[in-house]
Amino acid sequence: MKNTRRYALGLDFGTLSVRAVLIDTENGRTAASAVSEYPHGVIDRVLPTDAAGASERALPGPDWALEHPQDWLDCMAEAVRKAVCTAGIRSGQIVGIGVDFTCSTVLPTDRDGNALCLTDKWSGNPHAWPKLWKHHAGAAYADRLTEKAKTRGELWLPYYGSRISSEWAIPKIWQTAAEAPEAADAADCFMEAGDWVVRKLCGTKGLNATAAGYKYLRGGMAPAPDHDFYAAVDPVLADIMEEKIPDVLPAFSCAGKLTGEAAEWLGLAAGTPVAAAGIDAHAAVPAAGLNRAGQMVITMGTSSCHMLISDKKAAVPGTFGTAVDGFIPEFYGYEAGQSAVGDSFAWVTENLVPDRYVQKAAARGITIHQLLTEKAEQLRPGESGLVALDWLNGNRSILNDANLSGLVVGLTLHTLPEELYRAEIEATAYGTRMINDNFAASGVPVEEIRVTGGISRKNRMAMQIYADVLHQPIHILDAASGSALGAAMYGAAAAGSAGGGHDSLTDASEVMKAPVQETVEPDAGNEAIYDELYGIYRELHEYFGRQSDIMKKLRGRSV
Amino acid sequence: MKNTRRYALGLDFGTLSVRAVLIDTENGRTAASAVSEYPHGVIDRVLPTDAAGASERALPGPDWALEHPQDWLDCMAEAVRKAVCTAGIRSGQIVGIGVDFTCSTVLPTDRDGNALCLTDKWSGNPHAWPKLWKHHAGAAYADRLTEKAKTRGELWLPYYGSRISSEWAIPKIWQTAAEAPEAADAADCFMEAGDWVVRKLCGTKGLNATAAGYKYLRGGMAPAPDHDFYAAVDPVLADIMEEKIPDVLPAFSCAGKLTGEAAEWLGLAAGTPVAAAGIDAHAAVPAAGLNRAGQMVITMGTSSCHMLISDKKAAVPGTFGTAVDGFIPEFYGYEAGQSAVGDSFAWVTENLVPDRYVQKAAARGITIHQLLTEKAEQLRPGESGLVALDWLNGNRSILNDANLSGLVVGLTLHTLPEELYRAEIEATAYGTRMINDNFAASGVPVEEIRVTGGISRKNRMAMQIYADVLHQPIHILDAASGSALGAAMYGAAAAGSAGGGHDSLTDASEVMKAPVQETVEPDAGNEAIYDELYGIYRELHEYFGRQSDIMKKLRGRSV
Repeated sequence: MKNTRRYALGLDFGTLSVRAVLIDTENGRTAASAVSEYPHGVIDRVLPTDAAGASERALPGPDWALEHPQDWLDCMAEAVRKAVCTAGIRSGQIVGIGVDFTCSTVLPTDRDGNALCLTDKWSGNPHAWPKLWKHHAGAAYADRLTEKAKTRGELWLPYYGSRISSEWAIPKIWQTAAEAPEAADAADCFMEAGDWVVRKLCGTKGLNATAAGYKYLRGGMAPAPDHDFYAAVDPVLADIMEEKIPDVLPAFSCAGKLTGEAAEWLGLAAGTPVAAAGIDAHAAVPAAGLNRAGQMVITMGTSSCHMLISDKKAAVPGTFGTAVDGFIPEFYGYEAGQSAVGDSFAWVTENLVPDRYVQKAAARGITIHQLLTEKAEQLRPGESGLVALDWLNGNRSILNDANLSGLVVGLTLHTLPEELYRAEIEATAYGTRMINDNFAASGVPVEEIRVTGGISRKNRMAMQIYADVLHQPIHILDAASGSALGAAMYGAAAAGSAGGGHDSLTDASEVMKAPVQETVEPDAGNEAIYDELYGIYRELHEYFGRQSDIMKKLRGRSV
Repeated sequence: MKNTRRYALGLDFGTLSVRAVLIDTENGRTAASAVSEYPHGVIDRVLPTDAAGASERALPGPDWALEHPQDWLDCMAEAVRKAVCTAGIRSGQIVGIGVDFTCSTVLPTDRDGNALCLTDKWSGNPHAWPKLWKHHAGAAYADRLTEKAKTRGELWLPYYGSRISSEWAIPKIWQTAAEAPEAADAADCFMEAGDWVVRKLCGTKGLNATAAGYKYLRGGMAPAPDHDFYAAVDPVLADIMEEKIPDVLPAFSCAGKLTGEAAEWLGLAAGTPVAAAGIDAHAAVPAAGLNRAGQMVITMGTSSCHMLISDKKAAVPGTFGTAVDGFIPEFYGYEAGQSAVGDSFAWVTENLVPDRYVQKAAARGITIHQLLTEKAEQLRPGESGLVALDWLNGNRSILNDANLSGLVVGLTLHTLPEELYRAEIEATAYGTRMINDNFAASGVPVEEIRVTGGISRKNRMAMQIYADVLHQPIHILDAASGSALGAAMYGAAAAGSAGGGHDSLTDASEVMKAPVQETVEPDAGNEAIYDELYGIYRELHEYFGRQSDIMKKLRGRSV
């Protein structure tokens, strides 16, 4: 019997790879999922020598992080073809295409939409390359923007945690303008990577509303920064913001139709609707099926992103951005995050586990990670006497300070690797509680928590610890990639019901959302112990995050 | 040609083994050195089942640490016979015997001088066994003694850092009296282990002056605690202090002559002079040849002991004890210490070094320790951005608080084991500077530093770090065991010049002292960086040592 089902294609561009998924628009089931890794990965030391005309060139300093736009295109094609082939469907069954991308990952383009870095003239200039979300080399520009906004009492500032992050677009664009004015001059515009991919697919040049809301300070909670503000910062920046940023596309809208050229290149059908891009982490919100104020979804991978929807408008200190209709229509969307979660567990596993453990794991045919988890599971909460600060990659929320660092206290001559491992997991749970307590104190309490991402599926112990620390059940979603599922929903909504999709992102989410795989309930005995330990975490948080400048001094020494 | 040289026998009883050395009394050269390890090691979980009549019995709690007196005797005999045999000398060439021992290691004995724990009746009672220096289970008794002394304004208290340590004798004796009154009743007296060994050798029952000064609060800097004080603490303790503590022997004196029975048992000559015992670490002072006010010797092993001689009388806050003629005649002796030095380096080496390092070291045929040292040497001071607190086994000086714990700050996802390793070494150097700054602030500055012990000889990088952190040259002594050499000097002084030895410990030290093997000069560039990092250490020291109770809370959880 001929397969007549309809699918939405979701394209999830992460930091190291792109994933293509084909999702059944009627039940949310995954027909296929394929990943392709970027050949150049993150460019953080030297520019690629394969770029046309580029000789090897070291990047100007640490904290630089670039990507190669050709990687995105080549890997997208590979992943799409693989997914379609695996699913065994015809391209005509794909009703819509959705894209999510890390953000702000921003690049200058020429009039024809070519990445400046892929042209002979500019390939040797680091500023012509896409600055990845985690490019922090523009931190000084972010700080100067914050200072100026504070001085002027800008009303939008409190909705961005009162501090502009170097991960956002404006500091990156300003850095380019200030340090490579000739490249900024040569640029026709600065585009988000997700929007650039959408432009390659359907020809539409725009800025997606979610990037605008969270990374360009246009979240709609208060009047956005105007020309006067930017002019007061730097007249050159003001001109760029006025002339070189594309117009904002309507939220969760259809951006256009797949061009013939793109269709041929990807093996898809020309004319397929293409949705406006979204932010990778945020795509997990419709995927998780959030539809009630007070619900939060946490994506837990190398880092964590916390997304809370609410019907209340609040300026939450230390939040990472707030926008009207930010994640899904009709809700305020509050974002917070932790910059090292799975990364910090891996740091212990990869660097601090002795030979005797490696041998034991090998003899039993299990991974180090499994062995450590087994040993850590046998520890009672608090038994190790350790408390850690989970700032191995700085603190995103609620301190928003990249210069903070990790700490462990309570070490003895008997401290074992599994104790450190568990302490790092507990630290990330305390960090999440700090975020959620802060939301509650600001009038937008978190009433329900759903989780997705690698850690949520692979680390049951971590989920129990989170439930115990947060005093809340943790609903683990059954989705291989929440973001890719969400991207497919963008595509389904772009198609509309008439086109075989759904009439809105809300409708798509209702039908296609990931089911809850398991709910982890808190253990009453553990909760009390963790309350005490969390009290200690809070004291350390206050001292090292706000009172003492020790970590900033040490960070100054180490870079 | 017949060997007619004369030797002093030094017996150095450490935590895990006894070392016997034969030292030429005319030039200090070592003729032989032999070590014998205690079969029972440190007893910290269950009582030995081989003790007459003892069934296996778990110790009452953590922080217990006992030893087996028969180990001391058997191992002493083995080490002495081995040393004499290796040296190829006749027993008649040995002019005197000196003993040093860990302190306070204290045991109850019966009227005949038998260890109570070696009798059928008492072998099953943990309190009948020797409480080792690091038996901390009597910490509550130490705290109550401190409290009482503070309340009464006891004048001796400031000369003991204003805090009585659970490592000292009185809390251990009081714990025995309070928790096992029947054992305390049955005891004829409580003896220091060193004095007990001397009693076995020559029959003399006494308390050596150095133990009296540092561990029994009788240092002579102020009137010692009297009967009223002890009676106010606990009348039972007052009775014990009056009736069951042996009389103090004159400092560095001859305690008696080797008995026929002991001579036969050890293969030595009956009638050989036996010196009063000393404290193991303190024996390094004459061995290092200290003879001028302001000189310090640091013994660096698993832990460190700092011994400063001075002609000034001062009450130094946080010191570990002060006594008149404490280490050698004619000087005030100030003691301080760090409870984890080599132990903390070993903690990193044994627990936090990944498989890839182990393989690399094996391929190159070097130890993990050597590989880590190589890697750590390549780091510039401060490069790792880490600062640690060296309190993995609590803090002995200047906080004297066993409930403190280790800490590392500045961790990132890029932190490597060699950085942790170096940070732990640096932390111990900062800890020593804290001790020395404290001496200077109290009017007894440290003008010259000599070092001995395993770390001083094996870890050149550590010695450079100490020189840089302390802004002082570090003179490394050429002595396999400074303490054993010092014990031999006690023996030589007991013999007197008429007996082929020397007329005083001062004379013995002058002639037999260990030469300086190498002097490590500070590096001016590093000094400035370490001044900054030491500033951070001081801030952490103040916060975690004095302001916050975080570590105490965590310690309460982990035990």
